[in-house]
Amino acid sequence: MALTKKPYRGTRDFFPLEKRIQDYLFSVMHKTAKSFAYEHYDGPMLEEVELYKAKSGEELINDQIYSFTDRGERFVAIRPEMTPTLARMVASVHREEPKPIRWYSIPNLMRYEKPQKGRLREHWQFNCDVFGAPERIGEIEILQMVVELLENFGATSEHFEVLINDRLIVDTVFKKIINASEEDTYRLYKIVDKAKKVKPEAIEKMLGETSLDENQKSHFYRYLKCTSFNDALSFLEEHGKSEESSSLKSLMEKIESIGLDPYLSFDPTIVRGLDYYTGIVFEVFDKSPDNRRAICGGGAYANLLTIFNEDPLPGVGFGLGDVTLKDFLETHNLLPNFDTPKNDLLLTCQFEDGLFDMIALGKELRSKDLNVFLQPAPIKFKKVFNLAAKKGTSCALFYGEDEKAKGEVQLKNLATKEQVNIDLSNIEEMTTFIQKCEQEL
Amino acid sequence: MALTKKPYRGTRDFFPLEKRIQDYLFSVMHKTAKSFAYEHYDGPMLEEVELYKAKSGEELINDQIYSFTDRGERFVAIRPEMTPTLARMVASVHREEPKPIRWYSIPNLMRYEKPQKGRLREHWQFNCDVFGAPERIGEIEILQMVVELLENFGATSEHFEVLINDRLIVDTVFKKIINASEEDTYRLYKIVDKAKKVKPEAIEKMLGETSLDENQKSHFYRYLKCTSFNDALSFLEEHGKSEESSSLKSLMEKIESIGLDPYLSFDPTIVRGLDYYTGIVFEVFDKSPDNRRAICGGGAYANLLTIFNEDPLPGVGFGLGDVTLKDFLETHNLLPNFDTPKNDLLLTCQFEDGLFDMIALGKELRSKDLNVFLQPAPIKFKKVFNLAAKKGTSCALFYGEDEKAKGEVQLKNLATKEQVNIDLSNIEEMTTFIQKCEQEL
Repeated sequence: MALTKKPYRGTRDFFPLEKRIQDYLFSVMHKTAKSFAYEHYDGPMLEEVELYKAKSGEELINDQIYSFTDRGERFVAIRPEMTPTLARMVASVHREEPKPIRWYSIPNLMRYEKPQKGRLREHWQFNCDVFGAPERIGEIEILQMVVELLENFGATSEHFEVLINDRLIVDTVFKKIINASEEDTYRLYKIVDKAKKVKPEAIEKMLGETSLDENQKSHFYRYLKCTSFNDALSFLEEHGKSEESSSLKSLMEKIESIGLDPYLSFDPTIVRGLDYYTGIVFEVFDKSPDNRRAICGGGAYANLLTIFNEDPLPGVGFGLGDVTLKDFLETHNLLPNFDTPKNDLLLTCQFEDGLFDMIALGKELRSKDLNVFLQPAPIKFKKVFNLAAKKGTSCALFYGEDEKAKGEVQLKNLATKEQVNIDLSNIEEMTTFIQKCEQEL
Repeated sequence: MALTKKPYRGTRDFFPLEKRIQDYLFSVMHKTAKSFAYEHYDGPMLEEVELYKAKSGEELINDQIYSFTDRGERFVAIRPEMTPTLARMVASVHREEPKPIRWYSIPNLMRYEKPQKGRLREHWQFNCDVFGAPERIGEIEILQMVVELLENFGATSEHFEVLINDRLIVDTVFKKIINASEEDTYRLYKIVDKAKKVKPEAIEKMLGETSLDENQKSHFYRYLKCTSFNDALSFLEEHGKSEESSSLKSLMEKIESIGLDPYLSFDPTIVRGLDYYTGIVFEVFDKSPDNRRAICGGGAYANLLTIFNEDPLPGVGFGLGDVTLKDFLETHNLLPNFDTPKNDLLLTCQFEDGLFDMIALGKELRSKDLNVFLQPAPIKFKKVFNLAAKKGTSCALFYGEDEKAKGEVQLKNLATKEQVNIDLSNIEEMTTFIQKCEQEL
C-alpha cells in the first residue's frame, strides 16, 4: 500500500502559496510588536507536563494535550500554549531585567482538537506580554497593541470589536454583591462563560444547581444585563461599591483619552474561563455574522510567577492564532493576493552553451541583492513571458548566440516593453535596469 | 517543591538576546534562498511514523525519534528531519508544478540525542531542495547556494570547505572495480563512513569481516587514498571506467567554470551513511581545528518519491542546522554583536500627568513605521540616557511640564547631542528628526 500524501489530521501543509500568506501574517505581527519595542523570544516545543499542571490544574491539561513519556522517563508535552513557557523564562530572569519586560513570540502549538473551521490541531499563535508595567498602563498598552495589530492588517472598527470585562468586577459582583460561596462563585464563572452559547432555560437550570436564592439570582441576571461600561458602573454604584466603580471609571477614561473607545464594549460574559486572570479580560470578535468567533483573547494576571516560588509580578498579554486571523481577513477581503511569488529577474538563455555563462552571471546579480530565478535549460524567447508572469518577475534577461557573440545580454522590462542590451560584464548597469523595472511596476 | 525554571533537556530558551542571534541566522537563510528564487514552505511538526519508516528503514527510525501514539491510536512522531515531509508534499503536487521546483524551509526538529557541543535535541534546520532540474545543474546550484549562504555570513574559503563525493563513483568502485557482493557493498559503505573516525587497525578489522580477498582490499585502500578529483579520475581510468570518469570530469569543469573550485575537495569518505542519495554527496566542514565538524550536509537523490508510488523525480538538497552554524560563526568571530535591541525612539515623560499624552503620541509615531519604546512612568531627565543605551535607541523624546505648557516635545539626538523642540502635533517633523538620528548613527 502506498503511503498517504496527506498531512496528519488537523495539521496543514504550507505549500509556497499558503506559506506566503502565513509569512505575510507573521510579518505584520513582527512589525506591530517591534513598533511597540517588544522583543522577540522563543522556547522549546517540548516542556515537562508538570509545568502545564502547575499553571492550569490537573483536569485542564488532560484533555487536549499531546503528552508522552520520553526515553529517559520524563513526562513531557508538546506545547499547547506559550504562557507556561513564558512564565518559566520570565521567572528565571525577572530579578535582573529592568521593567517593563516586553516580549513577543510566534510559536507553533499543538492541541488535540476535533478539527473544524477556525480550530486545528497545529496552529501558530502570536503572543505578546508585558510584565512589571504600572497598574492599568500595561492593560492599556496591550489593548492598544491588539487594535493596532488588526489596523495594520487594514481592519477597522467596522470589522472587529474588543469585548472586555474586569475580573475584579466579576469577583466583586459574585462575592460581594451576590454573596456567593467559593463553590457557587466557581459555578457562576462557568455559567457566565457559557451564557452566550446556551438558551435562557439552560442558564436557569445551571443556576438551580447552585445554592443561590431568588434575590441572589436576580442580582446575577441584573449583572448579565450590563452590556455597557455605564451599566456596569451603575450596578456597582447601586450596591455601594464605589472603589470598584471608580477603578472602572478611570479605566474607561484612559481608554477614551487614547481613542480606543470605538473598538471596546463591556461584556459581562467575558471571563476567560477559570483561567489565571486577575484584572481585565478581553476577546476580540469578528463583527461579521458569517464568522462570529473570537480571533484573540487576553488579559491581566498578577500571580503567574508564584508557581515558581517567585514574588508576584503583574503581567498582561494576549494570544492570537493564525487560523482564526486568516479566516477573519478572508471574511473581510483584507488579505492581499499572494498567487505568484515575487522575484526581481528571470534569467534565461536561448542556447545550450549559454547556460554556464548565466549560472555565473546569476551569482553576480545575487550579490547585488537581486532575487534571480534562473531557468536551468535553454528556453525559447516566446516562452519567457509566460514563465516570468508565473515567477512574479517584471524583468527578463535573454542570452542567445547573437548576444554571446557580442558579449552582451538583453534585458527587457516586461511591463513597459523597454529593452536594452548591456555588456555581459556590466553588472552595475544591469542592476540599475532591473531595479527600475521593479520600481515602475 | 518549586517547579524547575530550566528548559527540557537538550532544548534551548531563546531569551531576546539569543533570539536576536537566531533571527539574524534565519534572515541570512531567507535572503540567500530568496536570492536563488527558492520558495518558502513548511509542514506539520507531527507526521505519522510510517513516513519515516518508508524513507529511512525500520532500524534507523527507532533510536532517535520522538514517537508516541495519539488519542486516536495513530502512531506519530515529532519531525526529526524535513526531507520526508518535503517528499510527501512534493509527491502530492509535482505533476502540476512546472519544473524545477525550488523550495526551502527552516523547521524546528527534535531528535533524541545525548546533548553535547553542536548537538541538541531541538534544533532548527535550513533545508533547500530543487526537484526536476537537468542533470548536474541542480547539483551545481545547490553547491553554489551552500557556498553563497556561508559567504553571506562573511565566511570565505579560509573558514570552511565542501568535501564532496559522488555515489555513482562509490557504487562503481565497490560493485564494478572491487566486485563486492551486495552484502559486502553495504559493509563497505559502513566502513567508509567511519574511515576518518577510527584507526587503521579498526578498518582492517572491519574489512576482515567481509569476504573480500587481498586484491579487493587493496582496491579499497587505493580508493581511500583518492583525496582529489584527479586521483579519483585516474583510479577510474586505470580500471577502464571511462563513462564514470568523464561524468566526474564534466562535473569538475562545471564547478571550475563558476568559480566554486576553491571551496571544494574530493573526499572518498563522504558517503552520507546508508541514506537515499544517488548522485553527489557533500558535507561542509569548519576548517578551524577548534571546531572540526560538519556544518551542513546534502546531496542528490533520484528516487525519493517512489515511496509514494510516484515516478522518480531527481532532487538535490541540503540541510544546515542552527546550532552548528552558530558554533561555526562564533569560532571565526563572524557573528555581529546583538547585545542590545534596536529601536528608533525612547519616548519619555518627566511628570505624572504627561504619560497619557505620550501614550497617544506613541500611536502616531508607530504609524510612521517607527519602533517606539515608551517608558510607562515618569522618568528623570538624567536617567534617560542610560535607558536609551539599553534599549538601543539613538533618539530620546522628553516631555516635562514646561513642554506641556508650550504644547511641545523635546527631541534629542543622543549621538550628536543635537536637540530640538517640536510642536506636539507636528508628527512629520518629529519623524524626520528621529529618522535622521538613526541614519547618522
